[in-house]
Amino acid sequence: MSDLWSVETSSLAADGEAIMRNGNIYQIANGYMGYRGTLDEYGRSELVAITLAGVFDRVGEAWREPVNAPNGGYTRIAVDGQTVGALEVPVSAHHQALSLRNAVFERKTAFALDGKTVTIASQRFLSAAEPHLGVIRYSISSDHDADIVVETGIDGDIWDLNGPHLPRLDAKMYGDTLVIAGMTNELGKCVAVAESATIPFGQQHHKVDGNRNLRVVSFKAEAGKTYTFWKYFAVCTAFEEAGLTAPEAAIAAVHEAKAQGFDVCLAAHNAVWADKWAQCDVIIEGDDETQHALRYSIFQLLIVAPVDGSRNSIPARALSGQVYKGAVFWDTEMFMFPFFLHTCPQKAAELLRYRIRTLDGARRKALTEGAGYRGAFYAWESQETGDDACTYFNIGDPLTKRELRTHFRDKQVHISGDVAIAMWEYFKLTGDDCILLEGGAEVILECARFYYSYAYFKKEKNRYEILDVIGPDEYHERVNNNAFTNMVVRATFEIASQTAFYLAETHPEAFKALVQKIAIAQELPLFAEAARLLYVPEPNPTDGLIEQFDGYFNLRNVPVEELKSQRIHPDEYLGAGQGLAVPTQVIKQADVVMMLSLFRERYPTAVKRVNWEYYEPRTEHGSSLSACAYAMVAAEFGNLDFAYKYFLKTARLDLDAKYKIYVGTVFMGGSHPAANGGAWMTAVFGFGGVSAGADQVTISPRLYKSWRSLKFKLAYKGDSFDITITHDSVAVTAAPSNRQTRRFCVWGRDESCVPGKRILIDRAEKVA
Amino acid sequence: MSDLWSVETSSLAADGEAIMRNGNIYQIANGYMGYRGTLDEYGRSELVAITLAGVFDRVGEAWREPVNAPNGGYTRIAVDGQTVGALEVPVSAHHQALSLRNAVFERKTAFALDGKTVTIASQRFLSAAEPHLGVIRYSISSDHDADIVVETGIDGDIWDLNGPHLPRLDAKMYGDTLVIAGMTNELGKCVAVAESATIPFGQQHHKVDGNRNLRVVSFKAEAGKTYTFWKYFAVCTAFEEAGLTAPEAAIAAVHEAKAQGFDVCLAAHNAVWADKWAQCDVIIEGDDETQHALRYSIFQLLIVAPVDGSRNSIPARALSGQVYKGAVFWDTEMFMFPFFLHTCPQKAAELLRYRIRTLDGARRKALTEGAGYRGAFYAWESQETGDDACTYFNIGDPLTKRELRTHFRDKQVHISGDVAIAMWEYFKLTGDDCILLEGGAEVILECARFYYSYAYFKKEKNRYEILDVIGPDEYHERVNNNAFTNMVVRATFEIASQTAFYLAETHPEAFKALVQKIAIAQELPLFAEAARLLYVPEPNPTDGLIEQFDGYFNLRNVPVEELKSQRIHPDEYLGAGQGLAVPTQVIKQADVVMMLSLFRERYPTAVKRVNWEYYEPRTEHGSSLSACAYAMVAAEFGNLDFAYKYFLKTARLDLDAKYKIYVGTVFMGGSHPAANGGAWMTAVFGFGGVSAGADQVTISPRLYKSWRSLKFKLAYKGDSFDITITHDSVAVTAAPSNRQTRRFCVWGRDESCVPGKRILIDRAEKVA
Repeated sequence: MSDLWSVETSSLAADGEAIMRNGNIYQIANGYMGYRGTLDEYGRSELVAITLAGVFDRVGEAWREPVNAPNGGYTRIAVDGQTVGALEVPVSAHHQALSLRNAVFERKTAFALDGKTVTIASQRFLSAAEPHLGVIRYSISSDHDADIVVETGIDGDIWDLNGPHLPRLDAKMYGDTLVIAGMTNELGKCVAVAESATIPFGQQHHKVDGNRNLRVVSFKAEAGKTYTFWKYFAVCTAFEEAGLTAPEAAIAAVHEAKAQGFDVCLAAHNAVWADKWAQCDVIIEGDDETQHALRYSIFQLLIVAPVDGSRNSIPARALSGQVYKGAVFWDTEMFMFPFFLHTCPQKAAELLRYRIRTLDGARRKALTEGAGYRGAFYAWESQETGDDACTYFNIGDPLTKRELRTHFRDKQVHISGDVAIAMWEYFKLTGDDCILLEGGAEVILECARFYYSYAYFKKEKNRYEILDVIGPDEYHERVNNNAFTNMVVRATFEIASQTAFYLAETHPEAFKALVQKIAIAQELPLFAEAARLLYVPEPNPTDGLIEQFDGYFNLRNVPVEELKSQRIHPDEYLGAGQGLAVPTQVIKQADVVMMLSLFRERYPTAVKRVNWEYYEPRTEHGSSLSACAYAMVAAEFGNLDFAYKYFLKTARLDLDAKYKIYVGTVFMGGSHPAANGGAWMTAVFGFGGVSAGADQVTISPRLYKSWRSLKFKLAYKGDSFDITITHDSVAVTAAPSNRQTRRFCVWGRDESCVPGKRILIDRAEKVA
Repeated sequence: MSDLWSVETSSLAADGEAIMRNGNIYQIANGYMGYRGTLDEYGRSELVAITLAGVFDRVGEAWREPVNAPNGGYTRIAVDGQTVGALEVPVSAHHQALSLRNAVFERKTAFALDGKTVTIASQRFLSAAEPHLGVIRYSISSDHDADIVVETGIDGDIWDLNGPHLPRLDAKMYGDTLVIAGMTNELGKCVAVAESATIPFGQQHHKVDGNRNLRVVSFKAEAGKTYTFWKYFAVCTAFEEAGLTAPEAAIAAVHEAKAQGFDVCLAAHNAVWADKWAQCDVIIEGDDETQHALRYSIFQLLIVAPVDGSRNSIPARALSGQVYKGAVFWDTEMFMFPFFLHTCPQKAAELLRYRIRTLDGARRKALTEGAGYRGAFYAWESQETGDDACTYFNIGDPLTKRELRTHFRDKQVHISGDVAIAMWEYFKLTGDDCILLEGGAEVILECARFYYSYAYFKKEKNRYEILDVIGPDEYHERVNNNAFTNMVVRATFEIASQTAFYLAETHPEAFKALVQKIAIAQELPLFAEAARLLYVPEPNPTDGLIEQFDGYFNLRNVPVEELKSQRIHPDEYLGAGQGLAVPTQVIKQADVVMMLSLFRERYPTAVKRVNWEYYEPRTEHGSSLSACAYAMVAAEFGNLDFAYKYFLKTARLDLDAKYKIYVGTVFMGGSHPAANGGAWMTAVFGFGGVSAGADQVTISPRLYKSWRSLKFKLAYKGDSFDITITHDSVAVTAAPSNRQTRRFCVWGRDESCVPGKRILIDRAEKVA
């Protein structure tokens, strides 16, 4: 990094893997689409992709996956008849940078061509103000006179994992606008890209070259002069509701952008970004490396936040490509949602609306999974309908080349509660019941109903139990009474009762209609009973340990490294019934500790410490979701060095991009928005010690030693607060526009924060 | 076969595998010990073994297994200085035979020695009248004069799978009696073998040669003269209760036998055998091959029936060696017990006493298995204490060379009910409550208690369910609501209530004491409720199919052979979580059909037929327990050709001895008493159509077309009946000693059978 607001490099990625990793690091996105960090002249073999949010397709028996649009950002030049590109001709200088401030990607590359140096420079952004729009400024200069031909337009040669999704592309030109449109394979819906350009030099003609729809511009470049043109492209699809067809809408969008021009488009884009950062930035003084990594993490979340009104969510690999089928996992509610909820709740609401939209899919899954259940069993891998994209056999065994049966889909039942908890948290922290009334209450009740139909009662123990599940630790499948899962289920039953109570009190008509619609009147009292009688593994009275599931403590205790040394093949999966970890205490990721983090207000610090110390050495951290949970809980009981180490690990994950690209034969490269969310949570919840509840915000700071201060904004109950934490004090400033005085509890002291006022709490006073 | 009462051959088994198979086919046993069918001069490399019932030992971390005693039957000769044995010198003639009438094994072998022919002949039996005793007659003749040296005595070179179990053998001579004694490794208990001989020729001296304790007899044999001597050996152990030490007891036994002499010993032995056959033979007229195979099967059961008072049971490989750890499985109660119950109930009682003796082991298992249960969870592989010898990892994967985790031990819960059902059947069919009072009632109540603590209640369905089990089909582990298991559990709850009711009525004091002893008063009403509310998969109303377990019908339907063709390695196990059969409907053995066989009075014929026709093609028959269940049910609904085919397969299993000897690296050779019992059941229950109930005996014959008649004795309520079935009639003759008139229902006609009288029911009359 050269400053705290950018990622940049002067070395050119030349091999396939480096190009792939840079494609992730330098990606831009605007919630509607993601554009990998590739160069203008790159094509499918360099993994160029414009991945569309919420647009899915399936080819044959392969996985359904998101559709990549034709690349409207394509430009390539030829100089004196020679094709020029970073991978074809010698590069004498290269620089590329991604601005975190406004998600603008730029590159500048000088090519050495038989004594001439030709330099191209481009800047591109996907408009944060107009989600369909991508805008590019492209410049060419040569130190000698040269004959230059520019080919720019739309590249329909699309990189796909399981494509082609737009099998018969149609390339047209309408006036000065290029269009490529195609129909998806499965649903036959149109995806269209339009492109137009302002090119104030040269002779133009139109050319269709295979799947490329191009304008060809020939000109004689004078030595030392810079030739700049501007491209506008738009992606529209028939998956959206619109009066226009997708090509029409795309054409209209580029016409409007072109009429406004680059600067106006950029200004609108920048204004949105300024708002985003004003709401969401976290400032760490005294530790630039961490500041940079954390900001990059936040940036990653901001670029993929769903477009308002889209009712889309964020897939586990965001918009960085088609990995993980573009599916939404529990990652969203448990690791990304808290960031949005505490900074820009309108995006948190959008994530929830996605679950409301897919409720019917969750109902279908409940009915058909296992013995058949009632209520809503959310998809483990959710696409646009909520039906489960997760397969029953989905981990390749390198030893037998067979697919292993896993139970991610049918047994990881905590997903429904994760959704219900997020619904309720939104209401609790925003004070806004809109989501409940839009369908969130229905989701919550249907999730509780699912759990009730899933639970068994043990008569002789007078308790409900949750049997045969996978908790967050996926190495141990089909376990009974997983602490995390059972706690999530209990919380869901509690939330269901609270939801019913709240609606009955405040919206009796809506409540009545809902109860009637889903015929749940007789079940509501059962949820309260189940919350009361559900067994959740408790801390052992003698040592405080919580057993991850029934029988976990009887498993063999083997050091993680020793276990891994027993692998016959390095890619061998450690779980799936017969894996090496199954009969041992080695776990894939935080499980009990994840529970202690999620339900942090329910457990004393001592319990957190002993369980952390027990489980951490047994954790392989084979999931990107693991480190942040351990970091947060470590911060809570005061192991700040460990918290810091795992915080950095989480925050730097996508910036370093050193993760595995392949697991077996499955391509896994892509970004990790859950880790990004985990980084934010570790900063604010862990080190900041922030815990926002229904009645007040608690702040118990545990600042890392090298930090001078930690500053961030907090959205709470529709109001906004600036928080500044130092080692000695906490300052909370309420925005003048706040509507109410809110209660804060800082270092155990209760304070009220009046709109427009600042409170300063001194640590010393607490000690005194 | 040369007649219907023997197994014989004139070819000498020369290679190791043939020797091993003959060792099984020609074995003799007397319940106390088994003696493999090897030749006098053989040693450990020919797998000589005298396997002791109920005597176990463990070496290091290897499996516990039965102890093999030193071989007191050892004899080897040398002629003119040349050692003679079937594997060392040319054999000019050989004949060996096993008499099924009295379990006497004999061999006669002529050796060609440089122009001389020397013939040895021996006869041996393990006394059915004195279980510790083995008796041998050994003769030598030569067609030319020869110098012969006989070495005879005790061979302490013991074949073991996981030995040595008697590590420091002590060889002594007391007077004319040889003794070898050793201490077991684990418990330090003595196993002693004494041997004495009457040798009316030659010069004797004593010799200890390694682990062999020998008498050496030298003599000049005259041409054409036969030299005969008689050996008596006895095995005694400190595992038995006795006033004497094991060596003393063994010495006393051989002294007594020697004093009586061979003929007296044989006469006593034969008298017992005459009784056995009088009680247990089944005569099939018109089909000699089947007659022979069936008789051999019955013979196999008779030789291994436990010694009266021993409270031993019959291991899954009987006394043919140490395979399967000498452990008792459900095979005993479900496949062997019915034979004894219907023919010689005193042996059936002994099998039950073994379960009473091991009840504490079953209690320990319940407490420690899984989440911990109450009551009695019988061992899947039970040795002398009832603790489970089954390991959690017990199937070698040829692909990875790892041991696979299986759930035979922890999830095959039907074992407890199998035991309880046998207890109750004994009472029902003998009318004798001695077993209930000796501890059988306690077993039944503790098994019901176990199931109650294992069961879960599904509130919204108002039913109990049995979750997470393995049924008889071991390819599908950890299934819910396995039809067979749930029916066994329901029967156990019913039996528990009936037991309590019966005892309370007839033995109020004993009942009170029992209820107090196991503090079960409050639970008894729960058993009745559980029997009523337990879910058992029912025949589907539309097609009559019973689902093997929740979700079975959703599994992939793949032809068995197609599935097997997908194996990478021929020894690959098809189950254990990730096996090829797991996601398919391919099952290892009868499961639903086993239930229909066991509970045959509860299901109509049409249900049996449709389920048989559904499940049979899906069955791999990978267990020797499978064929007889399919045979019996096929007989019931009239597919007699199939029944006959599978009957023969079952009945010939040990006679043909073509079974697999190794599974992976695990030695599996040995006899199959469960298949033997299955053969008897198929003959009597299947073709004979006999069903003895609490109130009457039903006979619905389905004689196979090639049979003229089927004759057998039936023990029922302490009385004895001769049954003769032809295609046209059934004759039932009550023994004169019978105490009561008993009811029979033949071809639907109710008849009474008065002591000493014969009733003849004509089939035609029924039609008329």
